[in-house]
Amino acid sequence: MVSYTINLLLTGTTKRGLDPSGAPMASATDMRNTRHFIASGQSALPMDSHGDFWTGANVFNSGNLKLDLLHNFFLELGARANKMRVYSMVDDPTAREMVGYLLVRGGVHAMAYAKALETYTGVEVTKLLPIPDMSNEAFPEAKKFMEQGMHRKLYTFSQDDYRQAGIIWNGNHPEDGKPLEFIHGAMEGVPAPDLEPEPQLNAPGGEDFDPQMFSDIARKMGIKYDY
Amino acid sequence: MVSYTINLLLTGTTKRGLDPSGAPMASATDMRNTRHFIASGQSALPMDSHGDFWTGANVFNSGNLKLDLLHNFFLELGARANKMRVYSMVDDPTAREMVGYLLVRGGVHAMAYAKALETYTGVEVTKLLPIPDMSNEAFPEAKKFMEQGMHRKLYTFSQDDYRQAGIIWNGNHPEDGKPLEFIHGAMEGVPAPDLEPEPQLNAPGGEDFDPQMFSDIARKMGIKYDY
Amino acid sequence: MVSYTINLLLTGTTKRGLDPSGAPMASATDMRNTRHFIASGQSALPMDSHGDFWTGANVFNSGNLKLDLLHNFFLELGARANKMRVYSMVDDPTAREMVGYLLVRGGVHAMAYAKALETYTGVEVTKLLPIPDMSNEAFPEAKKFMEQGMHRKLYTFSQDDYRQAGIIWNGNHPEDGKPLEFIHGAMEGVPAPDLEPEPQLNAPGGEDFDPQMFSDIARKMGIKYDY
Amino acid sequence: MVSYTINLLLTGTTKRGLDPSGAPMASATDMRNTRHFIASGQSALPMDSHGDFWTGANVFNSGNLKLDLLHNFFLELGARANKMRVYSMVDDPTAREMVGYLLVRGGVHAMAYAKALETYTGVEVTKLLPIPDMSNEAFPEAKKFMEQGMHRKLYTFSQDDYRQAGIIWNGNHPEDGKPLEFIHGAMEGVPAPDLEPEPQLNAPGGEDFDPQMFSDIARKMGIKYDY
Amino acid sequence: MVSYTINLLLTGTTKRGLDPSGAPMASATDMRNTRHFIASGQSALPMDSHGDFWTGANVFNSGNLKLDLLHNFFLELGARANKMRVYSMVDDPTAREMVGYLLVRGGVHAMAYAKALETYTGVEVTKLLPIPDMSNEAFPEAKKFMEQGMHRKLYTFSQDDYRQAGIIWNGNHPEDGKPLEFIHGAMEGVPAPDLEPEPQLNAPGGEDFDPQMFSDIARKMGIKYDY
Amino acid sequence: MVSYTINLLLTGTTKRGLDPSGAPMASATDMRNTRHFIASGQSALPMDSHGDFWTGANVFNSGNLKLDLLHNFFLELGARANKMRVYSMVDDPTAREMVGYLLVRGGVHAMAYAKALETYTGVEVTKLLPIPDMSNEAFPEAKKFMEQGMHRKLYTFSQDDYRQAGIIWNGNHPEDGKPLEFIHGAMEGVPAPDLEPEPQLNAPGGEDFDPQMFSDIARKMGIKYDY
Repeated sequence: MVSYTINLLLTGTTKRGLDPSGAPMASATDMRNTRHFIASGQSALPMDSHGDFWTGANVFNSGNLKLDLLHNFFLELGARANKMRVYSMVDDPTAREMVGYLLVRGGVHAMAYAKALETYTGVEVTKLLPIPDMSNEAFPEAKKFMEQGMHRKLYTFSQDDYRQAGIIWNGNHPEDGKPLEFIHGAMEGVPAPDLEPEPQLNAPGGEDFDPQMFSDIARKMGIKYDY
Repeated sequence: MVSYTINLLLTGTTKRGLDPSGAPMASATDMRNTRHFIASGQSALPMDSHGDFWTGANVFNSGNLKLDLLHNFFLELGARANKMRVYSMVDDPTAREMVGYLLVRGGVHAMAYAKALETYTGVEVTKLLPIPDMSNEAFPEAKKFMEQGMHRKLYTFSQDDYRQAGIIWNGNHPEDGKPLEFIHGAMEGVPAPDLEPEPQLNAPGGEDFDPQMFSDIARKMGIKYDY
Repeated sequence: MVSYTINLLLTGTTKRGLDPSGAPMASATDMRNTRHFIASGQSALPMDSHGDFWTGANVFNSGNLKLDLLHNFFLELGARANKMRVYSMVDDPTAREMVGYLLVRGGVHAMAYAKALETYTGVEVTKLLPIPDMSNEAFPEAKKFMEQGMHRKLYTFSQDDYRQAGIIWNGNHPEDGKPLEFIHGAMEGVPAPDLEPEPQLNAPGGEDFDPQMFSDIARKMGIKYDY
Repeated sequence: MVSYTINLLLTGTTKRGLDPSGAPMASATDMRNTRHFIASGQSALPMDSHGDFWTGANVFNSGNLKLDLLHNFFLELGARANKMRVYSMVDDPTAREMVGYLLVRGGVHAMAYAKALETYTGVEVTKLLPIPDMSNEAFPEAKKFMEQGMHRKLYTFSQDDYRQAGIIWNGNHPEDGKPLEFIHGAMEGVPAPDLEPEPQLNAPGGEDFDPQMFSDIARKMGIKYDY
Repeated sequence: MVSYTINLLLTGTTKRGLDPSGAPMASATDMRNTRHFIASGQSALPMDSHGDFWTGANVFNSGNLKLDLLHNFFLELGARANKMRVYSMVDDPTAREMVGYLLVRGGVHAMAYAKALETYTGVEVTKLLPIPDMSNEAFPEAKKFMEQGMHRKLYTFSQDDYRQAGIIWNGNHPEDGKPLEFIHGAMEGVPAPDLEPEPQLNAPGGEDFDPQMFSDIARKMGIKYDY
Repeated sequence: MVSYTINLLLTGTTKRGLDPSGAPMASATDMRNTRHFIASGQSALPMDSHGDFWTGANVFNSGNLKLDLLHNFFLELGARANKMRVYSMVDDPTAREMVGYLLVRGGVHAMAYAKALETYTGVEVTKLLPIPDMSNEAFPEAKKFMEQGMHRKLYTFSQDDYRQAGIIWNGNHPEDGKPLEFIHGAMEGVPAPDLEPEPQLNAPGGEDFDPQMFSDIARKMGIKYDY
């Protein structure tokens, strides 16, 4: 969802049209991170807010379960602090909707690691939360997702895998006291919008490209194909 | 499969046992990449052969379909050259089995990008292959996988997704003239071995950890749980 | 030429004058890449548009001719995509002149690698062009250079070296059907402007520096010297 | 002092207040380096002006005294060039005060390395100064610190250590001919301001935090404690 | 102490002597990290075991006290896991002595952050320890330092600063139930050995260097100076 | 010359032959830097001894002449220290020949920057040399090149350019008092050896490659072509 939202935030900032002499992407020179425009087709890239690429060094895999849980618990909370500040920096409703959603769902992950440590060690790690101290309720867009109970639901995103995660995701949520829900499968989503190509970005659709040809081959092969 | 094989190559190189004063991991000081041992639980990490972590800069996403296909075509072939040299450097049968497999399956990917460019543009890109010029048949372990037809099969790894990939993956393989196979779903695999924890690596299994407790909770929740 | 043009684009953005208390470089705080100003004398540096330095990892040298040609072919086209977007982002005539020139001359390089692959393998790689699909003709400044035939000329930049490059650079250009020209030596250029030192940047010209002394020594040594 | 001044320059750029829906940090989106805001509590971070982190590769330790002195001599002068340009870029009085101070005190370090080389080798290295050629006197804020003699004072910042540094720091300053001062101990400073927490940055002060509890424990332990 | 010990481990691995044609540093070609030899005077450098330099990105400063404590708590434990593995890899008594010391003193730091979180939040964070699960007692060299009570002592390394740290460092150590000690000042140390220059490394001592001259100046200035 | 020598040092370490199942590159697994083998065709790459790629950050361009000269003077001496240590680490005659040559010719560069600073400022910078303190005469291979006067010769490597460099390169060499030589043009070299392709490295020469075809085209074009 994050990359879809980033793409939605990027698209439309430039003008549409094939004539480069009109400088259809002139507005990109005022963006902080021009990499989304110069080196990519106006789409999300695996980098931080500063345009620095993620590296494999961000992957933590110690071989010790307790340490890995502690790392991920910390990581989610560090991410939460950064999300809270990004929220405080932006006015755009799409950006706020995304950050609000991330605060709630990231909060689920932090809670899940806390509960895993709690089940494992008996120490009441969940009582450390929230870190930072401010509740997600202070963010209107996050609150809206909490009213839908999104902060209490852990999904397996599969019918078969991760079934044993229910061992740690049970009981009540400490913030509202309502029962945690463990859900086999994924949430019912909204289809990701299939954005039109942006011709000024040299996306497919030029003269060489023949959708009809692809449709013909697909038809012969009995494949449903809507380019 | 790569990371499983790397894990198999790493495990067993050190001695088992909880007593650190016996220097059970002494052999690791002779390894080229000690990160697998010092900073990880003897498991695969997202880094290159030199221990340098991958970065997001390796992700290429130009926004132009033809350029992306050309990039990935090149990328698979650059990877193939490196695999060929790694094969020439190693005697270990597990390592050779992995590299042989990678040569064949990576060859499928190179061919797939070539065929996509060919379908799109009409230029016979597949005739550039093999790059480098030597056939996979020169590698006995690769040849074995080719005799199973692994070089002609493209999998979707899903019953629902990527169905339209059959548009490009059809016709015959240029090396042996036999028909390409497009397979909805995944190959029948061999279960990844579930390696025992290695106590000298501080994996779970210490005195605080109580498998019985987990089993009890799981049983109450009706979850099948074999730790 | 790129670095000269970058220098011309950088110079004059700041005020001239030795008195720092007038903040003669104040305008630099609004530049995206302040490295050109803080860490360099308002001159081109070996970095990307984001201010990240190039690294030796950008050098590709596989040891296999076909793979190297394919890599460089791809590289020129990836660069072309980025140039097209930079063109679409800028209004400045000097910037557009530079990008237009780069599109045409970079196009020569892409074509040269394509023709090398074509000569080597017989596969009509040049028919993949243009990638991205839009012709350079869509860019007025590029078109101007094409009217001078710049897209059909390959220079050796030497009277002695690279003579065998003519083996691949012959025949007609696919876009306009006119004959390719292989030129021993360099194009007749325009002398790079010898910019005056910028005193606010602490360039030479301070009280310690005595051009007369240099001229005197040069005269005694019979060297023509115009500082 | 640098980090305190950076912190003073950062604080107050955002609005105070706990309600994130008012976007109290909106102004940070216009900052060149948002890392101070997104990834830190509006405080100085170990990075350059571009937001790139310092690395251990900046530490030079050759094992040869003369080479180390030459390196540090160069390093101070390279830093001086950058400071001169930053001064020329900023109008803010706090920023200029900091840069003026750094020019003077960094000048002491450059001179100290020059004098060490001079004592060691007999070559009059100090006569190479100033590099760049402009005197610190051209910068009004630096001149003010020079009128306090700050360019002639070398501190040990300890009563016991570095006593032998006086071997090289003696004689007169080449710019004004007045005697160099070697001072055992530190300059009398001004207490660093103890900035209040910024609630919008989730600094301590939330509901879980009980200053009274800390004061009580401190009192019992006989510790003076003013949170 | 770490860098002194590293230096002790490095020194003596090469032969002494000024004649390079004897290849006095030949043994360094078998070292994993040749940077200590090629790019430094056989001394500790700010890099990891792989020769990759530390960066400022390792500094964590979130602006939120609880999050910073949690980060540092995790960090000490991640470091502990790596130390435990390094111990298991080395036989050298000096290396084991260093790692044993680091396990004990790093354990103090982990405990200190745990107690800070405990004091702050009331959650019994210290009960999560030890992470990884194995006690330091399993490491003979660490056990020796524990018998000296080193695991129970927190030093301020100053007579004036950090006095309020006693607020969190009190009570008993959970492993042996003995009282924690909060010590104003530093431990009584052993003077760091003042290693002789290594002539093959071009350390000072060449023909240009005149210790007598330094002694003479020092004597005139009343400085005790024993080069 | 460095890259040619590196290539000569790399070639022959592996066995020749096309059959990968003989593990013709097995010896490469014992090399410190496997990148020359896995990711390149056994040829020099732009990286340091540790396999870390050079970056554009190594380019120093301050805009101030005196500072640039000082930087390059330091840089040559830092490089000299590293070369001295590499010499002390290697026994191989080819490696020693290369390092001996680099010590002498790098010494010319250090001297040239020193003389430029001397001419510019009047400070006798050349008297700081040698840094590190040991003379190149201590290295037998370097001494051999000095007996050929290689330490006194500055080449322009061009008939037309850099003619004014003679302004600084005149007088006598401080080490042997013999006159410096300023030479318009290049030294008479030895042709770089044209190494045969290494078939196990997938260099050109495979079945697809037809030298005859190239010769035929070349002959028709009147180009001398000896593949």
